[in-house]
Amino acid sequence: MARPTLIAIGNYNDWDVEPMQAEYTLHPVASVEALAHLPEDVCADARALAFKGHAPFGGKQMDLLPNLGLIANYGVGFDAIDVAAADARGIKVTNTPDVLNDDVADLAVAMWIAQARRIPEASDWVRSGTWSEGRDFPLNRKASGRRVGILGLGRIGREIADRLAAFKTEVHYASRSEKDTPGWTYHPDYVSLARAVDDLFIAVVGGPDTAGCVTAEVLDALGPDGVLVNISRGSVVDEGALLDALERGRIRGAALDVFQDEPKIDPRFLRLDNALLQPHQGSGTGETRRAMGQLQRDNVAAFFADRPLLTPVN
Amino acid sequence: MARPTLIAIGNYNDWDVEPMQAEYTLHPVASVEALAHLPEDVCADARALAFKGHAPFGGKQMDLLPNLGLIANYGVGFDAIDVAAADARGIKVTNTPDVLNDDVADLAVAMWIAQARRIPEASDWVRSGTWSEGRDFPLNRKASGRRVGILGLGRIGREIADRLAAFKTEVHYASRSEKDTPGWTYHPDYVSLARAVDDLFIAVVGGPDTAGCVTAEVLDALGPDGVLVNISRGSVVDEGALLDALERGRIRGAALDVFQDEPKIDPRFLRLDNALLQPHQGSGTGETRRAMGQLQRDNVAAFFADRPLLTPVN
Repeated sequence: MARPTLIAIGNYNDWDVEPMQAEYTLHPVASVEALAHLPEDVCADARALAFKGHAPFGGKQMDLLPNLGLIANYGVGFDAIDVAAADARGIKVTNTPDVLNDDVADLAVAMWIAQARRIPEASDWVRSGTWSEGRDFPLNRKASGRRVGILGLGRIGREIADRLAAFKTEVHYASRSEKDTPGWTYHPDYVSLARAVDDLFIAVVGGPDTAGCVTAEVLDALGPDGVLVNISRGSVVDEGALLDALERGRIRGAALDVFQDEPKIDPRFLRLDNALLQPHQGSGTGETRRAMGQLQRDNVAAFFADRPLLTPVN
Repeated sequence: MARPTLIAIGNYNDWDVEPMQAEYTLHPVASVEALAHLPEDVCADARALAFKGHAPFGGKQMDLLPNLGLIANYGVGFDAIDVAAADARGIKVTNTPDVLNDDVADLAVAMWIAQARRIPEASDWVRSGTWSEGRDFPLNRKASGRRVGILGLGRIGREIADRLAAFKTEVHYASRSEKDTPGWTYHPDYVSLARAVDDLFIAVVGGPDTAGCVTAEVLDALGPDGVLVNISRGSVVDEGALLDALERGRIRGAALDVFQDEPKIDPRFLRLDNALLQPHQGSGTGETRRAMGQLQRDNVAAFFADRPLLTPVN
């Protein structure tokens, strides 16, 4: 029996390519644009697509693959994929939730402390020899005990909050609905949340529903002692308002793993000394990336075996 | 009534100098060596000394101040002060415990994740423009879920363990005696502890009793996937063995806030890419340093008022 055809968009590790090659006739494609250059018979044979990346994938791209039945996304955020367009074509979409929660929450908490305690600058202070010359590193700010807000108490937001609670913080959150929590304070809107807390963690999903929801008004409610931590999507924040607020000290600082137009981020970020910047590495450990690839392939395998998909999003 | 004389050794912030000047006839002294240059009548008048720093302060220095009754140390670690020599002269010693526990534990946990997730290198990756050029940051290692060992479950060790437990770790510890814990595993010796865990946090007090207690044998028991985190004192570790282990990959990495001969640390550390280095900033926040200064002064005030000392160590 001929092996099924699988198109894989994006840049995969060997540990993902090899098992895909073992099961399928694999057609690796570097980018969404390169899809247009695939031979017509490959496009016709392809019933499943392994998707990795952040470039938009909409109805126009789906129509290049007339028999497509599954888009298996690598990552929990599937905002690059036009799910309505997939629905309209009877295409199922899957993602890779949960397996990355720990890594993203670990990074969020570490970024929060690293921004307050200036860990990268302190590392430079040692490595440049400044400390050896006898100059003490300047004092910075305490993390434990602050009031923290979680914007979006989904799977990842919950993991962040559970960790922050161990740092003697007072936890507040905003979410579509009030949740069962160990005494955390619910806020129905983002401005009320930002006003109630010292530091604000963004953990909502990306996509059109949350685009720009962290507005200048939210940042002003956070205020001049507040720090914004974002491990979600750059699209969630009004980035111009954030840059203004950081440049003018309207908020104290930010710790950011995600940006609009990443990786080509606004060069104004690079001039800030009150922002900790990370290269969208929330899920970027070997352990978790292997688990994400496995879950992506498990969804593809379920699809070809006519078994229920493990983590469908539509 | 004449105000009491107070000698203050070390480099103090204005927020400490001003209240000391308000209460006492203050004689600031930059270093232990400079004590010898104080006028004889000042030395004779001084019944109390505010001590800050890591330079040894022994019987010879104490004998410069014939009427000394109190050495109020700024910091929880008082290993610079020869307490036996103080005892022999009827001099009381105080320190500043507890007020810095949160900061030190915050930094320990953040350093642990920052080493695993390479936060300083990732920051450089963004700021140097490497990410903008389209190069993905290399994958790194997961923190949550590891087995962690705490060497010394005192006040600070306990705060570290409480935080680590929120990262789904399995907590082990070694201490002089078994403690009441939420199911953590006690080990009677350091090698057994190091063998049982992935990563090892040093939180014992400094001083002669613990000097060099993290030996080559302990590091080998930690092994090639293990990471050492030290926020205690550089003296606790056999530093030559640690450097060898890091250079040869006998342990995976280290996250170090303290060193022998700091701030003039061994230049071999600067060539390591598997060590996160910090400039002894465990308690280095404005919030905590103010609290430490206050506790130091409260001990001095109690001494002059013949009230019980707040935090005596002898």
